[in-house]
Amino acid sequence: MLNIKLIIEYDGTNFYGWQIQQQKRTVEGVITKTLFQILGEKVKVIGACRTDTGVHAEKQVANFKTNQKINLIVLKKALNSILPKDVIIKTISLKNSKFHSRFNAKSKVYEYRIMKKYSPFLRNYAIYLPFVLNINKMKESILYLKGKYDFLPFGVKLEKGQRTILEVKDIKLIDRKKEIFFKIEASFFLRKMIRSIMGILIEIGRNKLEPHCIKEILDGKKLYKWQLMPAHGLYLIKVNY
Amino acid sequence: MLNIKLIIEYDGTNFYGWQIQQQKRTVEGVITKTLFQILGEKVKVIGACRTDTGVHAEKQVANFKTNQKINLIVLKKALNSILPKDVIIKTISLKNSKFHSRFNAKSKVYEYRIMKKYSPFLRNYAIYLPFVLNINKMKESILYLKGKYDFLPFGVKLEKGQRTILEVKDIKLIDRKKEIFFKIEASFFLRKMIRSIMGILIEIGRNKLEPHCIKEILDGKKLYKWQLMPAHGLYLIKVNY
Repeated sequence: MLNIKLIIEYDGTNFYGWQIQQQKRTVEGVITKTLFQILGEKVKVIGACRTDTGVHAEKQVANFKTNQKINLIVLKKALNSILPKDVIIKTISLKNSKFHSRFNAKSKVYEYRIMKKYSPFLRNYAIYLPFVLNINKMKESILYLKGKYDFLPFGVKLEKGQRTILEVKDIKLIDRKKEIFFKIEASFFLRKMIRSIMGILIEIGRNKLEPHCIKEILDGKKLYKWQLMPAHGLYLIKVNY
Repeated sequence: MLNIKLIIEYDGTNFYGWQIQQQKRTVEGVITKTLFQILGEKVKVIGACRTDTGVHAEKQVANFKTNQKINLIVLKKALNSILPKDVIIKTISLKNSKFHSRFNAKSKVYEYRIMKKYSPFLRNYAIYLPFVLNINKMKESILYLKGKYDFLPFGVKLEKGQRTILEVKDIKLIDRKKEIFFKIEASFFLRKMIRSIMGILIEIGRNKLEPHCIKEILDGKKLYKWQLMPAHGLYLIKVNY
């Protein structure tokens, strides 16, 4: 039995996220369907991250198992010639039978993009905020998020008994000419956690809250209100193994 | 009477080009409609360039005249709050009554983008060609296009008696990591001229034709066949006055 690893790039704009759903266009759905067309076999495609509706991916990872004898180069060409234009298989490789794209992931890197000036070309790829952000305050804030903490206050619709303690390994705010890039790497993420973190960072950037609020929130000491930021500014950049 | 100049950015993907057409979504159409909503007056919006379906613009220029007293800052805000997300007014200014965005244009700058690796994020913004291009040959070719020539062989559906002699003032091929950028500035352009030029440049890049063919074509000496390249790789970058 072959265990095949895929690295996938997709524009999430017209997808209802990664995970397969009846009657809805999802990335897992179109890949599973395309593999069925090519292999004549229904395989289970396991994705490393279940990205939400509108979230993009530069390097999502997935794997599937098949009993068929496949030439990987031919399979990649066949997939990319059939797949819709908003998703592409970047690389395809053979892994040992134990490889599991989700369970074996050591960390995941996400990015969130904010436009400084509105551009029609970025409307689905970055958010636009009609006010100036205090970047220094935002940079100060993210220092409180680096490390191992209980991120429960930043989780949305968590499942019962779910682990909420996780390690943020790296976190950066990069201020470029046209956009602000927020990068975060963690062992794993809670549902909508990054969009929630972005929400409070933006409150701080607007001078409505102070950086140390982040510490108070993580300590469970104080409650603040903030909004979830939209999905279309978020990218899954990389999965590390 | 006020003569108002607009600089407009738009993603051409979902527009049937610039020029107003019944029952079709065009950039001139949505701007005219939005101005009517704000001013309660039907104005004639004159665009510097009649971009085709799918062609984008970073800085299209337009002007319109009105008898109303308008605060330009308020008008810009009103326009951008009503206009759809794929078009934005970048600047708005007052010109003297003689200013005509098309007739006064001294030159126009266009850009054409080619992806080196296919990316779903660029599918509407650059073309992808599944073969390697000989950039040096393409760079050699464009030298033949700089200057004043009869560009008739590169025009499509020309009108009777139309001027076809024009001056290419600047032409460049920039080879970047992810994309190839082709930039061209001319006094004016014939219909679909840039997409036609791209077609022959790509034949040369594929080693199917030699650079000097361009000279032969301009001299009217020899006939070759080439294709028109797709509209979605083309951008109106700037209009000079």
